[in-house]
Amino acid sequence: MINSVGREIPDFLLKNGRGVYQGKHHMDGMYIQKQAPRTRRYEKPQQTKVIDSIVLALENCGAKDGMTFSFHHHLRNGDYVANMVMKAAIEELGLKDLVIAATSLGDAHDPIAQYIEDGKIVGIQTSGIRGKIGEVVSSGKLKTPAIIRSHGGRPRAIEEGELHIDITFIAAPTSDCMGNCRGVGGKSDCGSMGYAMSDAKYADHVVVITDCLVDFPNYPASIEAIDVDNVVVVESIGNPKKIASAAARISQNPRDLMMAENVAKIIASTPYFKDGFSFQTGVGGPSLAANLFLEKYMDEKKITMGWAIGGICGPIVELLKKNKIKKIIDVQDFDLEAVNSIHRTPNHFEMSASQYANPANKGAFVNSLDFVVLAALEIDTDFNVNVLTGSDGILRGAPGGHPDTAAGSKVCIIVTPLTRGRMATVCEKVVTVTTPGDCVDVLVTDYGIAVNPLRQDLIECLDKASIPHLPIEQLKEKAYSLVGCPDDLQWEDKVVAVLQARDGSILDVVRKIKPYIIK
Amino acid sequence: MINSVGREIPDFLLKNGRGVYQGKHHMDGMYIQKQAPRTRRYEKPQQTKVIDSIVLALENCGAKDGMTFSFHHHLRNGDYVANMVMKAAIEELGLKDLVIAATSLGDAHDPIAQYIEDGKIVGIQTSGIRGKIGEVVSSGKLKTPAIIRSHGGRPRAIEEGELHIDITFIAAPTSDCMGNCRGVGGKSDCGSMGYAMSDAKYADHVVVITDCLVDFPNYPASIEAIDVDNVVVVESIGNPKKIASAAARISQNPRDLMMAENVAKIIASTPYFKDGFSFQTGVGGPSLAANLFLEKYMDEKKITMGWAIGGICGPIVELLKKNKIKKIIDVQDFDLEAVNSIHRTPNHFEMSASQYANPANKGAFVNSLDFVVLAALEIDTDFNVNVLTGSDGILRGAPGGHPDTAAGSKVCIIVTPLTRGRMATVCEKVVTVTTPGDCVDVLVTDYGIAVNPLRQDLIECLDKASIPHLPIEQLKEKAYSLVGCPDDLQWEDKVVAVLQARDGSILDVVRKIKPYIIK
Repeated sequence: MINSVGREIPDFLLKNGRGVYQGKHHMDGMYIQKQAPRTRRYEKPQQTKVIDSIVLALENCGAKDGMTFSFHHHLRNGDYVANMVMKAAIEELGLKDLVIAATSLGDAHDPIAQYIEDGKIVGIQTSGIRGKIGEVVSSGKLKTPAIIRSHGGRPRAIEEGELHIDITFIAAPTSDCMGNCRGVGGKSDCGSMGYAMSDAKYADHVVVITDCLVDFPNYPASIEAIDVDNVVVVESIGNPKKIASAAARISQNPRDLMMAENVAKIIASTPYFKDGFSFQTGVGGPSLAANLFLEKYMDEKKITMGWAIGGICGPIVELLKKNKIKKIIDVQDFDLEAVNSIHRTPNHFEMSASQYANPANKGAFVNSLDFVVLAALEIDTDFNVNVLTGSDGILRGAPGGHPDTAAGSKVCIIVTPLTRGRMATVCEKVVTVTTPGDCVDVLVTDYGIAVNPLRQDLIECLDKASIPHLPIEQLKEKAYSLVGCPDDLQWEDKVVAVLQARDGSILDVVRKIKPYIIK
Repeated sequence: MINSVGREIPDFLLKNGRGVYQGKHHMDGMYIQKQAPRTRRYEKPQQTKVIDSIVLALENCGAKDGMTFSFHHHLRNGDYVANMVMKAAIEELGLKDLVIAATSLGDAHDPIAQYIEDGKIVGIQTSGIRGKIGEVVSSGKLKTPAIIRSHGGRPRAIEEGELHIDITFIAAPTSDCMGNCRGVGGKSDCGSMGYAMSDAKYADHVVVITDCLVDFPNYPASIEAIDVDNVVVVESIGNPKKIASAAARISQNPRDLMMAENVAKIIASTPYFKDGFSFQTGVGGPSLAANLFLEKYMDEKKITMGWAIGGICGPIVELLKKNKIKKIIDVQDFDLEAVNSIHRTPNHFEMSASQYANPANKGAFVNSLDFVVLAALEIDTDFNVNVLTGSDGILRGAPGGHPDTAAGSKVCIIVTPLTRGRMATVCEKVVTVTTPGDCVDVLVTDYGIAVNPLRQDLIECLDKASIPHLPIEQLKEKAYSLVGCPDDLQWEDKVVAVLQARDGSILDVVRKIKPYIIK
C-alpha cells in the first residue's frame, strides 16, 4: 500500500492494526489503552539492592531466551553498559534470540554487531543506528527487520505495549543502594536521564548499573528506587571524554554563518517571534550559530525567549544564564556545559522523553514549540527529509527528535548546505523518508531559501520582510547542476528496517542494499 | 473467615481473589500486573486547555452515571474543590450512581453527605472519613460499603486496577494553561502534591482546577501536562487559613513532654540510632515534642539524621535548616513553614504517595525507615491500633500513613495518653483494627511503657538503657481502673466500611452502629 508520502509499504508489515502513514495529525483525539508492566512486590524492608554482578542481576530478574533488553543512550559514544550487559547475557549465560531496544545505538556498540551476525540478537528497536550495527543490519544479517522510531515514538510504543521491555538496564552516573539514580554527581555524568524514564516505569524488571554509589536517598531522583530490582556497581559505565564533549563551538565557517543568519531572519519575520516564544535547535554548525543571530534580533525587539527544549548544549545554557531564556526543559545533554548546568542553574530542568515528544499523550512539549531548527542528510522536492540512510543506502543515522519537533512546531526550518562532498542534499526523492514533508516548513541552504507551499502564511512573512526565496525545485536543479544527478540505488527485496512515523504508522522501509557495481 | 488479627471477615467480601490479612509481609516477592488508563491522544498543537467551567470539563471528559471521580486532600480542611465538582456533576449535570475516590475526606466535605443520603453517591473509597460523611456512612446510608485504605494502599489499588479512576480532579495552587501543576506560588499553596500524582498518571481523564494560572511551563511540575485534559480557573480552590495552619507549636504540657522524652530515650537506646538514621513523626502533641528531645540525643552522640519523610511540619524543617537532617522527602505539608520550605530549602524534596508508602512496588521509603512515632485512638493488648472509629463506633479518623510506616519501619513507637476523657486508650480489643499488632513495637503512655513481646531485641535495648517497661496488660488494667471498662458497642449486621490492609487484604470491617441505649 502507498502511504501519504508516496512510499510503497509491503502488505506483510500491515498486520495487528498497523497502518501506513496518513498525515501528521491523523490520530489526534483517538484513544490509547496504555499497557503496564508485571512487576515485583518488595514489601519487606531491604538493606540494599546492590548485587555483585550483571550475571546475578540477570538471573535475579529471570533473564531468558527471547527477551527484550532495553538501554538508554545518555552516555552517547562513551557508553560501556550495553556491551557489558549483552556480553554477560550471551557469553556468560548463553542466552539467545534476544531483542535490543535502545534509545539509540552508535559506534560505541560495534561489539554488538557480532552477536547479530552470530544470530544471538534477532531484533533491534532503536532511534539511532550507526557504525557496524548499521552495516550488518543493512546487509540483511538481522533475523527480523529493525524497527526505527523517533524519540517521541518510542515512549508511545512502550506505553501502548507495542514495545514490551522485559529488563531495562539503566546506566547511572550516580545511584544509591536502592536504585534512586541521577545523571549528575559521579565520574561519568551525563546530565539529563530523560530517555531512560519510560523504560524504568514500563519494564518488568529494572537493573541499575553505576560506577558511583552514593548515600540513600539520591534525590531528586531521575529514576526512582520504587521501580528498581537491583543495583550493580562496576568500575566504569563509560568514557567521560566521549559522553560529553567540550562545549560545542559556534561555527566560524562563513557559509554556515550566512545560513544561520538567514534562519534567524526568517524566525524574526514571523508573528510567533514575540516575547515568551519557544525554540529548539540542534547541535549542527549552522543550527548552533542561529542562536547567536537570534540573540541579536531578540535584543533589537527587546524580547526574551520563554523556554527552550531538546537536546541541550552550551550556547543555550549561556542564553539562560544571561536571562535571555526563562526556562530550559532538558531531555538530553550534548556537552559538558549543559551537563554541568542541569539541576544547578536555576530554571534548567529535566524532562522525560514522553514529556518531550510522545505524540500519544495529552500534549508533549514539542506540540507547543514555536520554532525548531534542524539539519538533514537529504531533503526532496516534497520537503520529505532523510536523516537515517546515507547516500549509499546504509543505515547510519537517527530520526531522534527530528520528526517529533517538525510535526509539533509552528515553524520547522531545515538548514543544510546544498551539496555535501559530491552529493546533492536537495534531491528529487530522498532515500528514506524519516520526517514527512507535511511537517517541514522552510529550507535554508547556502544557495537560497525555499518555503513549503503548504505554508502560504510563511511565504507572506518572508515577502513582507524582503527575504528572497525560490521554489525548492530550483534548489534541486542547482544541486544537480553542481554535482550531477546520482544513479538510483539498487535494492534487493528484503526489508531490513521499518521506519515508523511518530504515531506508529509506517512511514518507509529500508531494504537490503545491492553491492554497488560501476556501470 | 477469621484473619490473623482475629477479626471475622464476612465471606461475601472474599471474592475476586481478595483474601483476609495474613501478616505484614505475606505478599513479599509476589508479582503484580499493573493496569493503565485508556487515555486520549493530543497530537495536534493546542493553544490552551483552559475551559470555562467544571461542567464543560466534565462533558469534555465524557462524565456519565456510575463513574468514579477522584480527589486529593492536600488542601485539607480548606478544600473547596471536591464540593464544587460534585455539585456540578450532580446538580448541574444530573449525574448519579457516582463513586468518590479521595485520598481523604474531612469536615470540609460535609455538603457531600447529602448526596450520599440522596443516593446520588453510591460508593466511597478514601483514607480519612470524618464529619458528616463519617456519620451518614456509619448510619448505613451509603449503598455499598466504604473502602478505607492507607496512603500506601491507595496507589497500590490504583496500579493494580482495583481502583479505576474515570476522572481525577486536581486542586492545583498553580497551573499553566497546559496543566503543569505545582503546590507553591499561588494564593492557596499546599506545598507537596504527592498524593495526587498516582491519580494523574492512572486516571482516564484529568481535570486541573486552579485559582492561579501562571506562565507555561510551570516547572518543575508535580502534575505533568502530558496527563491533563483540561484546566478550569476558579475564584478560589480553598481557604488558605484551613489549608495550612501556622507552624505547629511544640506542646508545653508536662505530660506530653514526659512521654516525648521517653520516646527519644527509647530511640536513642536502639542500635538504629546512629549517624544517618531515618525518622518520621506525626503532628500530635507528644509526637512533635519528640523532635526536641531527639535533637538533644543527636547532639550528645554527635550524629545527624540522614533523612526524614512523611507529612512534614515546621519542627522537622527547622532541623533541616540547622543541618541536623540531610534530606527531607515530603509527601504532604501540615503547616505553613513546611509549605514555604518545600522546593525552596535545599534538600527539601517532594515525592509521590507510591514512593512514600506503596507496598506493591519495589521498595517505598517507609520500608527503609528506622523510626516512626505515631499516635492512636486506641491500642489493644495485641498491640493492634485503631485510628479510624471513635469510642462510639462512628467513622471519624484516617489510617493515613499509619499502617504503612508501622509495617515498614524498624521501630514503630505509639505514643498516647493512657486515657482520653472518660475512655481507656489502652484496651482489651480495639473497635477497629487499622494497624495490625505485628507492625507495632513499643507503646509509650503517661503511665508507663510497653514493648511488643515479638521484639525481644528492643526489650533488651530498653533494659540495657535502664528504661522501665511493663506488660501492656498492666497498662490496660491501669486504664480500666481509672475510667472503668466500657460496655461493648452494639452493632447491626450491615457492613458499612471495609478496612483494607496496605497489601489489599481485608483487615477489618465496620458495621452499622446501633443507637446507644442506656441500660
